[in-house]
Amino acid sequence: MSLGILTTYRAGIQEGLKSALAGGSRLRSILRYHAGLEDEAGRPADATGKFLRPSLVLFVATQLGADVEQAMPAAIGLELIHNFSLIHDDIQDADRTRRGRPTVWTVWGTNEAINAGDLMQAIAVSCALRAGSDVAGVLLAATDEMIEGQSLDLGFESRQATLDEYLRMIDRKTGALLRAAFTLGGVVAGADASVRRTLLILGSSIGRAFQIQDDLLGVWGDSGVVGKPCGSDIRCGKKSYPTILAFERARDEELSLLESIYARDEVTDEDVAWVMALMDRHRIRETGQETVRSHLEESESALDALGLSPAGRNDMNELLEYLAGRSK
Amino acid sequence: MSLGILTTYRAGIQEGLKSALAGGSRLRSILRYHAGLEDEAGRPADATGKFLRPSLVLFVATQLGADVEQAMPAAIGLELIHNFSLIHDDIQDADRTRRGRPTVWTVWGTNEAINAGDLMQAIAVSCALRAGSDVAGVLLAATDEMIEGQSLDLGFESRQATLDEYLRMIDRKTGALLRAAFTLGGVVAGADASVRRTLLILGSSIGRAFQIQDDLLGVWGDSGVVGKPCGSDIRCGKKSYPTILAFERARDEELSLLESIYARDEVTDEDVAWVMALMDRHRIRETGQETVRSHLEESESALDALGLSPAGRNDMNELLEYLAGRSK
Repeated sequence: MSLGILTTYRAGIQEGLKSALAGGSRLRSILRYHAGLEDEAGRPADATGKFLRPSLVLFVATQLGADVEQAMPAAIGLELIHNFSLIHDDIQDADRTRRGRPTVWTVWGTNEAINAGDLMQAIAVSCALRAGSDVAGVLLAATDEMIEGQSLDLGFESRQATLDEYLRMIDRKTGALLRAAFTLGGVVAGADASVRRTLLILGSSIGRAFQIQDDLLGVWGDSGVVGKPCGSDIRCGKKSYPTILAFERARDEELSLLESIYARDEVTDEDVAWVMALMDRHRIRETGQETVRSHLEESESALDALGLSPAGRNDMNELLEYLAGRSK
Repeated sequence: MSLGILTTYRAGIQEGLKSALAGGSRLRSILRYHAGLEDEAGRPADATGKFLRPSLVLFVATQLGADVEQAMPAAIGLELIHNFSLIHDDIQDADRTRRGRPTVWTVWGTNEAINAGDLMQAIAVSCALRAGSDVAGVLLAATDEMIEGQSLDLGFESRQATLDEYLRMIDRKTGALLRAAFTLGGVVAGADASVRRTLLILGSSIGRAFQIQDDLLGVWGDSGVVGKPCGSDIRCGKKSYPTILAFERARDEELSLLESIYARDEVTDEDVAWVMALMDRHRIRETGQETVRSHLEESESALDALGLSPAGRNDMNELLEYLAGRSK
């Protein structure tokens, strides 16, 4: 991926992460491993994520007149909160790999992985605090929301969520930190209340578009690009946007068969094909794409209101286009 | 226990906790359960801890001229950090009960307990932040230290620690938050650098005394008072101060037998009696008590330097006496 918004700040963010996670303890070296800065033996590695959230903080802050240095603690704080949540998420989902590497709990055990996430959270907020109480306060509120979303998601394991409940959950679980990226950029730059409201709308709509697009890719994504096979979320029984909408739209025998497939331990290729055909009949993909598009239009209006520089607007358009069709 | 320092602030702290943990989500009701404010069904309960740390924050702050309201966010923040660590600690140690009630993970599962601890940490810092960046910064630094101590402790599961390593570990794992109680009181009251240094010495020495005393009670405590049977820490193979010192002092066959007992899955009454006799021969309890006493003397000198009110000095003396002989 070569989005301008991601390449511009990449090196700076990497340096910021290294310095935030410096230190001689075993636990801190585990954090550097998780962040992709080191391998299991503590040797330098280059396995970091794409830094979407911190890049957005820096982008928004600089567009609104702050300089990169001023915004960096907020950006790093947000990226570290994201990373803390991933460490604990991997324990909770029993995921064994992340970005092609063994997850922290598989290498150091669950107990140490709990400690690692705990410490990452504390370091994240310490970092943000260097940019002031307002920045730390916004980051903490987003962290709170994200964890509440995590808990709502857990609740759905035992019962079927409606699409509305699902969207409210995902708005917190993954939306909170994306919204915070925009808000933090505004706070760092000392934006007024009206600009901050616009940023919140922008963050909400982009976040929603991003998540639904991600869910669509879990079913219709091209494995070469997304890193998982087509129909992958159906195969592993993940109840994301397409599945929940399919449950809402399926009727009678269709619904019974759908329920029985999602109740099975082993899902066959035939099952996956049948579910995908059902989703086609009910135009699930189209509905999802239309929803993504409408959120992106909302983002466009918010962007118009922000009055970015031509170069900045260009970078954002590039990001929105990428979000609108991530499979390409 | 009816220590003045604990009774004075009890009601205020309980109110502060209730308000910090208010909210309609399931996760927040789990936090209120853990804090002892509610039962599993969300009905009011009275099962809180003794509030040692927040009481110390309020005591120190008011002794140095701040008012209780001003110091409350720091006190509540510290108590919540302590509670976050307990929720995760109970998962890590697979402890099924705490203060006579089922632990969070046994009631709501490990995944939700991880979320609960994560949220408690975020709420704790948000709370402290209301008293300013300095207060939040001190709390975060203490949290960082505590988690590093937790990680060091985990490392000792796979190898025998020396007494020195053990003391450095415990100084972080449990000492960090006790030291923070004193430091936070000073920060809230705007104490100068010299007073803050004295508070740090006071917190360190009291913390060390408190921990070693606690470890001694794990072996020689009266079950009616401490809530666990005499020799309890020997029976469950816990490597605390007395055990580590016993390992350092035992020689030849004595050491081999000691090692073989601690390697066993099931420890008999005879084993416990033999270990306690060995500890007697090596004057482990006396050494521990002398160490506690010397830390308490250090505390006395620090207290002299602080110049408390007569009533305040009286309260602290009562606390020190309690720490010096907690089994009584």
